[in-house]
Amino acid sequence: MIMNYRLGIDIGGTNTVLGLVDKYGRISGKCSVSTVGHSNIDSYIDSLAEACENMLPEDGRLLGVGVGAPCANRETGCIEGATDLPWHGVVPLASLIAKRFGASAVISNDANAAAAGEMMFGAAKGIRNFIMLTLGTGVGGGVVCDGNVLSGSRGFAGELGHVTLGKGYDRLCSCGRRGCLQMYCNGRGIVATALELLSASDAPSALRSLDAAEMTAADVMRAAQAGDETACEVYRITGRILGEATANFLALSDPEAVVLFGGVAKAGKLLTEPMKEAMEEHALFLYRDRVKILLSTLPDADAAVLGAAALVK
Amino acid sequence: MIMNYRLGIDIGGTNTVLGLVDKYGRISGKCSVSTVGHSNIDSYIDSLAEACENMLPEDGRLLGVGVGAPCANRETGCIEGATDLPWHGVVPLASLIAKRFGASAVISNDANAAAAGEMMFGAAKGIRNFIMLTLGTGVGGGVVCDGNVLSGSRGFAGELGHVTLGKGYDRLCSCGRRGCLQMYCNGRGIVATALELLSASDAPSALRSLDAAEMTAADVMRAAQAGDETACEVYRITGRILGEATANFLALSDPEAVVLFGGVAKAGKLLTEPMKEAMEEHALFLYRDRVKILLSTLPDADAAVLGAAALVK
Repeated sequence: MIMNYRLGIDIGGTNTVLGLVDKYGRISGKCSVSTVGHSNIDSYIDSLAEACENMLPEDGRLLGVGVGAPCANRETGCIEGATDLPWHGVVPLASLIAKRFGASAVISNDANAAAAGEMMFGAAKGIRNFIMLTLGTGVGGGVVCDGNVLSGSRGFAGELGHVTLGKGYDRLCSCGRRGCLQMYCNGRGIVATALELLSASDAPSALRSLDAAEMTAADVMRAAQAGDETACEVYRITGRILGEATANFLALSDPEAVVLFGGVAKAGKLLTEPMKEAMEEHALFLYRDRVKILLSTLPDADAAVLGAAALVK
Repeated sequence: MIMNYRLGIDIGGTNTVLGLVDKYGRISGKCSVSTVGHSNIDSYIDSLAEACENMLPEDGRLLGVGVGAPCANRETGCIEGATDLPWHGVVPLASLIAKRFGASAVISNDANAAAAGEMMFGAAKGIRNFIMLTLGTGVGGGVVCDGNVLSGSRGFAGELGHVTLGKGYDRLCSCGRRGCLQMYCNGRGIVATALELLSASDAPSALRSLDAAEMTAADVMRAAQAGDETACEVYRITGRILGEATANFLALSDPEAVVLFGGVAKAGKLLTEPMKEAMEEHALFLYRDRVKILLSTLPDADAAVLGAAALVK
C-alpha cells in the first residue's frame, strides 16, 4: 500500500531540519543538513533532496514540500532580503525546490507555518478561525480565516508582533519604531519588564541574585513558578498587555481561539490567566466569553517541521 | 437574450430600498417599501417579492438576492437582536427570502456589503486585498482578503470602528467601552473634536457662530472647505487618528488599499492627506509606501443597494 508523506523543512540560520510527516502528524523520519557551507543554492537544494530520498520509504509517495523560513514570502515563493541566511537578495526557493523534488512546494514564514501546523496537527485541529501568536525571540502572528492562513496582498499578513500599543509604550523595536507588541511579550520583553520592576521597588526577589545583563526569560519563568512575587507580576503585566492587544485583534477577524506557542508561552497559566482577564475586559461585547486561549500542543522539537509540512494542502 | 440581474436590498429602520442591478453595476430598477407597518415578517417579505417582480423585465433572470441590514450575520443568515428593526430576537431572513424568491440569498451588515460593492462596482475593482472603512453615524469595517470579505467564526469580523486606541483616548462609546476608533472618526466624533478645539483656545472660527448643541459634521466640513483654520485642524486630527489606527490594521491583513466611504469621508483630501501621512509614519517598513487610500466611487444614493447586490456571487 502506498503511504503519502509531507516533507516539512525548517530553515534556520545554521541548520536546516527536515521531517517526513504522515497524515496523522507522526514524524517517520527526521534529519538535518547545514544551511551554510554550500557553494551555491543549487548544492544546498541537492543536499535537501538527497536527505529526503534517504528518508522516504520504498512504498512512500511525496505529497509535497512545505518550508518555514525567515523572510519567506508565500505569495511569490521567494526568500526576500533575509539577513540571517547565506543567500542575499530575492531567492525563488519554492520553484527551485519544486523543480528539484518534482513535487509541489510552499514556503512561508515561521509564524504562518506554526498556524498551519496547529490547525492540521495541534491545538487548533477542527478550528477554522483562529489567531496564532508565537512568543519567542520575536513575536510572530498568523491569522487563520475559514481554514486559510491569510497571506495578504504580498504575503505579509499577520505581523502581529509589530502592532503598536500607543501612548505609554515606548520601548524601541528592532524595526525602528516604538511600542511594538513584541517588545513587551518576547523573551527580551519579559526581562525588560523584570528589570523595570526590580528597579522600581526594594521588594525582595530571587531575581536580584542574578546578573541583570545575563538574565533570561527562562530565569524569570522559573522564579515565577517558584512563587517569586516580582517574577509573577512580570507575567501578570505581560499577560495583560497581550490580552488587551488581542481584544483588538478579535475585532478584525472574529476568531474562535487564540493559540500561543514559544518560550514565553511555556509559562502557561501564569501568562494565560491575566491575558484572558484583560482580553475579556477590553473586548467588544460581541466577542466576550467566546474566544478560547489555547496553548500549542505540538512538541517543541518538532513544531517547526510539523508546521512546515502542514503548509502542503 | 436573457439578462442576469442581482437584487440588492438595503434594510433601514423606516424604509427598505430595492435595486435591480446588472453585471456592470447599472441599476435598472429601484423602489422602496416600508420596513415597518407589516403585520408579520412574511407579509414584509411578500411585499419585497412583489416589488422585485414588478421591476424584473420579461427577459430578466434573478441571479440571487443580497441584503445589507443592521445586525445581519452572514454566517447564519439571520438578523440577530436588531434594536432598530421591527422584528426582535433571531430572524432567519436569508432562508425566508430564498424560499419566497426561489433564488439564493445572502445577508450581511452594511460595512461588509459596502466592501463587496466597492470590489465589484467601485473604487476597489480588481483589488483583491483591501480594508473598507465606512465613516458615518458609526464607523464600520470590512476586511477583504484574496477577494473575500472576511466573516470570521460567527460573522463578526471587521468591526474596525470598535478597535480601541489606548491611553489618552477615553471618549465613551455606545458599546460601553472607552476610546473606540469610531468615537473619533464618525460624525459625532468630528463635532466633539471641534468643540474641544473651540473651548481650548480663543482663535476666531466660523464655528463659533453655531449653536454647539446643533453643530453637525457637515457644518465642520463646510467650514473647513471654506478655509476655517479650526475646522481644518479638526480634519487633520481626525485623519491622523485614522491613519495611526490604520497602520496597525495593515499588520493584520497586508492590504493593497484602504477604501473610505460615508459622510465623514466626503471631506476628501482634508481627511485623506493627514491620514496618509500618519499611516506612513506609523506603519511597519513592510507596508510603507505601498498602501493606497481611496475614496469610494459609488454614488451615495445607490451605494447601499449596489453593495447588497454585490454580495451575490
